[in-house]
Amino acid sequence: MRFLFNYITRLLLIVLMVAPTLITAQKLIYKDASLPIEDRVNDLLNRMTVEEKVGQMLMFGAQRVARKGKDGSLVITDWGKPYFTNGLGGLKFPFQKETPEESARLNNELQKKIIASNRFGIPALFVGEAYNGVDAKGCTSFGRPLNLAASWNVNLTHDVWSAIGRESRLRGWHMVHSPVGDIARDPRFGRMSEGYGEDTFLTTEMLVAAVTGVQGDYNGTGFNTSHIGAVVKHFAGYSQVVGGRNFAAVEVSPRVLLDELLPPFKTAVQRGHALAIMPSHGDINGVASHGNPWLLTDLLRKQWGFNGYVVSDAYDVGRLNFLMKVAENIEEAVKLGLKAGVDLDLYSEDVYELLPEMVKKDPSLLPYIDRAAGDMLRTKFIMGLFDNPYIDVEETKKGVRSKENLSLAKEMDEESMILLKNENQILPLNKKESRKIALIGPLLGEDTKEAFESVAGDKVSFVAEKGYELTNRNSKHPELTPRNDAALDKMVELAKDADVSILFVGGDRFTAQEATFFKWVIGDRATIEPVGVQDELIQRVKALGKPVIVVLKHRRTLSFNVINDNADAVLDCWEMTEFGDELVAKVLFGEFSPSGKLPVTVPRTIGQIPYHYSMKEISFFKDYLFLESGPLYPFGYGLSYSKFSYSQPKLTSDILERDGTIQVTVDVMNTGKVTAKEVVQMYIKDMFGSVLRPDKELKGFEKIELKPGETKTVQFTITPDMLVFTGVEMKPIIEAGDYEVMLGTSSQEYQKTSFRLK
Amino acid sequence: MRFLFNYITRLLLIVLMVAPTLITAQKLIYKDASLPIEDRVNDLLNRMTVEEKVGQMLMFGAQRVARKGKDGSLVITDWGKPYFTNGLGGLKFPFQKETPEESARLNNELQKKIIASNRFGIPALFVGEAYNGVDAKGCTSFGRPLNLAASWNVNLTHDVWSAIGRESRLRGWHMVHSPVGDIARDPRFGRMSEGYGEDTFLTTEMLVAAVTGVQGDYNGTGFNTSHIGAVVKHFAGYSQVVGGRNFAAVEVSPRVLLDELLPPFKTAVQRGHALAIMPSHGDINGVASHGNPWLLTDLLRKQWGFNGYVVSDAYDVGRLNFLMKVAENIEEAVKLGLKAGVDLDLYSEDVYELLPEMVKKDPSLLPYIDRAAGDMLRTKFIMGLFDNPYIDVEETKKGVRSKENLSLAKEMDEESMILLKNENQILPLNKKESRKIALIGPLLGEDTKEAFESVAGDKVSFVAEKGYELTNRNSKHPELTPRNDAALDKMVELAKDADVSILFVGGDRFTAQEATFFKWVIGDRATIEPVGVQDELIQRVKALGKPVIVVLKHRRTLSFNVINDNADAVLDCWEMTEFGDELVAKVLFGEFSPSGKLPVTVPRTIGQIPYHYSMKEISFFKDYLFLESGPLYPFGYGLSYSKFSYSQPKLTSDILERDGTIQVTVDVMNTGKVTAKEVVQMYIKDMFGSVLRPDKELKGFEKIELKPGETKTVQFTITPDMLVFTGVEMKPIIEAGDYEVMLGTSSQEYQKTSFRLK
Repeated sequence: MRFLFNYITRLLLIVLMVAPTLITAQKLIYKDASLPIEDRVNDLLNRMTVEEKVGQMLMFGAQRVARKGKDGSLVITDWGKPYFTNGLGGLKFPFQKETPEESARLNNELQKKIIASNRFGIPALFVGEAYNGVDAKGCTSFGRPLNLAASWNVNLTHDVWSAIGRESRLRGWHMVHSPVGDIARDPRFGRMSEGYGEDTFLTTEMLVAAVTGVQGDYNGTGFNTSHIGAVVKHFAGYSQVVGGRNFAAVEVSPRVLLDELLPPFKTAVQRGHALAIMPSHGDINGVASHGNPWLLTDLLRKQWGFNGYVVSDAYDVGRLNFLMKVAENIEEAVKLGLKAGVDLDLYSEDVYELLPEMVKKDPSLLPYIDRAAGDMLRTKFIMGLFDNPYIDVEETKKGVRSKENLSLAKEMDEESMILLKNENQILPLNKKESRKIALIGPLLGEDTKEAFESVAGDKVSFVAEKGYELTNRNSKHPELTPRNDAALDKMVELAKDADVSILFVGGDRFTAQEATFFKWVIGDRATIEPVGVQDELIQRVKALGKPVIVVLKHRRTLSFNVINDNADAVLDCWEMTEFGDELVAKVLFGEFSPSGKLPVTVPRTIGQIPYHYSMKEISFFKDYLFLESGPLYPFGYGLSYSKFSYSQPKLTSDILERDGTIQVTVDVMNTGKVTAKEVVQMYIKDMFGSVLRPDKELKGFEKIELKPGETKTVQFTITPDMLVFTGVEMKPIIEAGDYEVMLGTSSQEYQKTSFRLK
Repeated sequence: MRFLFNYITRLLLIVLMVAPTLITAQKLIYKDASLPIEDRVNDLLNRMTVEEKVGQMLMFGAQRVARKGKDGSLVITDWGKPYFTNGLGGLKFPFQKETPEESARLNNELQKKIIASNRFGIPALFVGEAYNGVDAKGCTSFGRPLNLAASWNVNLTHDVWSAIGRESRLRGWHMVHSPVGDIARDPRFGRMSEGYGEDTFLTTEMLVAAVTGVQGDYNGTGFNTSHIGAVVKHFAGYSQVVGGRNFAAVEVSPRVLLDELLPPFKTAVQRGHALAIMPSHGDINGVASHGNPWLLTDLLRKQWGFNGYVVSDAYDVGRLNFLMKVAENIEEAVKLGLKAGVDLDLYSEDVYELLPEMVKKDPSLLPYIDRAAGDMLRTKFIMGLFDNPYIDVEETKKGVRSKENLSLAKEMDEESMILLKNENQILPLNKKESRKIALIGPLLGEDTKEAFESVAGDKVSFVAEKGYELTNRNSKHPELTPRNDAALDKMVELAKDADVSILFVGGDRFTAQEATFFKWVIGDRATIEPVGVQDELIQRVKALGKPVIVVLKHRRTLSFNVINDNADAVLDCWEMTEFGDELVAKVLFGEFSPSGKLPVTVPRTIGQIPYHYSMKEISFFKDYLFLESGPLYPFGYGLSYSKFSYSQPKLTSDILERDGTIQVTVDVMNTGKVTAKEVVQMYIKDMFGSVLRPDKELKGFEKIELKPGETKTVQFTITPDMLVFTGVEMKPIIEAGDYEVMLGTSSQEYQKTSFRLK
């Protein structure tokens, strides 16, 4: 009996010892797509050396690693070769300057090489950017993200970003370092138009639409390999840099941070399932974002449940030392960034690369390396990259710059133009009236005249004169073009001969760009007046006594007071797609009605800021000496060729229970003569709070189309979580009391009602 | 035995029961100046009704309560009479518009009445204000507090405020709602010149000098009844209102609050023994200062040990309801303000006055009322008011506008003028040279020509033309005077005939004033360009080809680029005393050398701000498009008629121990030709920190006088507590590492050395 027992025990032990080996021999856990991702990540991590793990934590500019040879074949550079053995986290912008098909073909080859070169066959992430569409040769050019905000069209935003995601994937890319969730409240900041305007709610809705669009509606399971991963940035408070100076310190009220700046990111993670996050170049109240464990670990991962990866903004881990001065040397910077939660070191040499040596002296770093490499591997598993690392080049040919995508670009233009002024209904212009129109001004495009001619038909004739470029592109710094009286005279001369002038003014992209780390690249401004002699141009044209229509093109909010005063009509276009001028012509000649609304407040001067509509009520209490009250144009503002009337809003109850909802409805009627779209906006105001409360906050919007005489009832659901804010104890609270609900056409024109939260 | 024991016990009990009564009959505790103040406060409180306690918590505008009758006698108004029975905390501005002697006499009478009318004979506090000297008829007019900051002369600041304290007391007043500890970093704010500039260290030193000056060097015991109590304001963060708009929200980094905005107040309490504090109109990051228990109780009283009283800024307790909207009704506002720590309700009817009724329903309010009334009584005991409530009118005659005080006013002017530009050493002007000088410009004073003539002697002749007033004083709002070409021509005409022009330009007081609660009183600006045609005036005068000297008078920092470019010399005077123009003449003609230094950074445009010199290093990293780098003039800057050379600084050790100090010395030599004063400035920079650190911070300064060729060695002691800052965990820390020490003539021109903190 005892013998038998011993025998069975021994047998069992042998089986237990041998079994895993047998199973492994059949299929490695990390290779088994049927197993849970965490098991695969852990299995793979357990097999990897520190060097291999750190390999996953590196991302270089692709051109350092690979290029296209003269015969079209893939060439790996001498610099790049040594990195292949341990594998690579990813590469930035691989074959950005090739056609989509070439990019797809070369990226397939490059990926094949990467997979073959490391012993576990781990693919690399190929990553791009997308500001005006995919930032690469041959892709559809879309307008600026701020134009999407100006459209107030969530579905359109989703579809544009879905096209961006698809076009990126079709080049062989897997991620974009986009979209941007920064709240744009300082128009001095050169990057303000990369985000969705000044408002938290609008930005949140647009950002989530962008993330779900670009990620192919990924909902947390079953990533669609037709699309790519989003890298939401810049986490957090980036656009709040003091003075609007890129890289400057961010000094912000913690309550504003929690209630106004973080929600877009939180929602992008929780509702949008964003796969990756990029911290901001800067700090939050002295703590550098790339070295902030509260931000990147406690809040992002533990509280919000983020399980993707965090990638540095370029060299920013190293910059914790030599720029931010919060680490006394590069090793300290590595520790600070890694421990805070940065997984992937972008562009740097000798920063995270130091880790294999560092960990020999300090093994306590190992769990952080495991987290970082694990986050990278998890993302690659989630995206199915181990199983589907390549792209079908035939699909690339069909899918990039497809008819659908080009028509989306036009739709984006159509929906984003904002009519700010239309004195005496001078717009739309009549195609059937014989008239000569002068198209003038420094923002005139090369094909503007052609576009106008094709739209307007035979009766209207055009003359065009750009005059001069706003900025001198030969200098290292952007510089203003010297005054050119001959050019001014020439434009005014054309206007004199014409019946109507259309002025293309505003700012070119050199007057509002990213101010990079390099000293000579500056892009922020201390004023938001239009540069150069544009004010003089419109004054001289206006003095001719004939109608003046302004087409405003720009990347930052401008306080265009003189232009505004002298214009009969102002069409605010921000930065549109490649079809911009065609759509401008169409809207000016009435083919459709403008339907964009301002996603920012337009101040009368930079001296008014901060001046966003949702400031604390008290911040609007006093005016300035010698300056007219209020903004030049308020948030949410935008005219139409039609008119809309709003009924008194109705509530299903004037009491909101803490576990309940109420509905508010408003009837909107098109009382004008043309079919037009209107953005119905809902604002809520907390009448009293334990802390100072915003003057009002956008909490709902819907874009509707109405035929002349048509009425639609728009309904919004009001929920208690719309009323949450950070209380005195710095915890989220919802307070009993009275709330005003405003429904209307802008933040300053609305019908109102009120309810009480019990 | 037992009988004896019982007998003794009974006897003892009787004695114990009767004794207090006997003692009281001899002398009431609260009346006994030999007893500890806390005993007297408690004794008095125990005797008082709730109505009497609340009486101590009220302060009204004195003119509502008392006035001077036609025969010169004191008249108590019908409105005021009912308040006398319960006693009064105090009255604001009693007999402000009477001569000092009349004020003293009438205040004595009024106090007598108050003391006689309440059953404990409690005196009232009579309170004034002091911005340019005591704000009352017949007192010495001093310059603006910012001028004292510009003098960088701590002893002078002490002496000026001592004069203010003495002159206030001599009118029969006991407190001033001054001085101001706000850090002025936003020149849009109309009240910026009420404080001591942008820097924490300079403000702290000046504020403490002001408090000790006005309080007669009170050091915590034995208040000198020759002087008065200080009410330090506006606690805290007031001048940080967004957009520089008075009453607007304050959104501030908590680390900036702790490290940069609170230290002046903390030091005024702990080193200056300030008797009272006034909270700011505004909030800090959403929490209204008048309803902030952390600020007014935890920090101020518990952490800092403040035992004076907290007085509301005018109606601000009530405004917690109707302006700040943090209390749903006035009763809630009363509770919020009282519990947070406001003792005294200024100006309001029916705010703290509601307390006797409220406490009937809610007895939990009683301890707060005891605290508030106790704080008021304690202050009155500390100041010896129970014993010395009156003023000797004979002293008033001698002490107000005394020779000493008038000469202090002149010294203030002499020390505060800042020479910003002096091309080709055009200044000082030579009295012996026969020349005709035109004194022109809208800031010319009535007696300016006379003052110049008296200083310059016979050889120099003057013509003068003010031209126009900058603002129109007939309107309700301050309004800019319409362009007046005739006035411009007249000034230019005078300049044409003269050899030299001295332009008096800048801003009058209506271009920078307090924007009060009343809608029509505005005082903040959205730009800091000089108003009106002043740029044009100087351009036209400069075009005449003769020297142009600018005397800049103003209450807010101006970005006077055009004026600066066209001036050969710029003397920055801010707002001087009644002797201002005489001292301007003296300095221009070389009777002494200018020695003021800028207590603020002068930005090139409002669009640069925030732009103070001590911002985080990173905030200076990027420039703006199309704008010259740096400020127009840096903090600490100011020229002299002489020149100073600085040696390489020497340290007693390059290692600072945590319990040690080191000394740094620098030899400063007057290498010029005239005796002159120089402000030697010490800045320290923390080279690396766990949070982002300032670019540099002022940590010492000394004003010295040097004869030509003379050298003085200036020594500063460096202590570890100079290096303290708020760390990542929001606790004060001192970090090991390298520190740079800069010694020089401004924040941008210095010699440097370094040490290491172990």
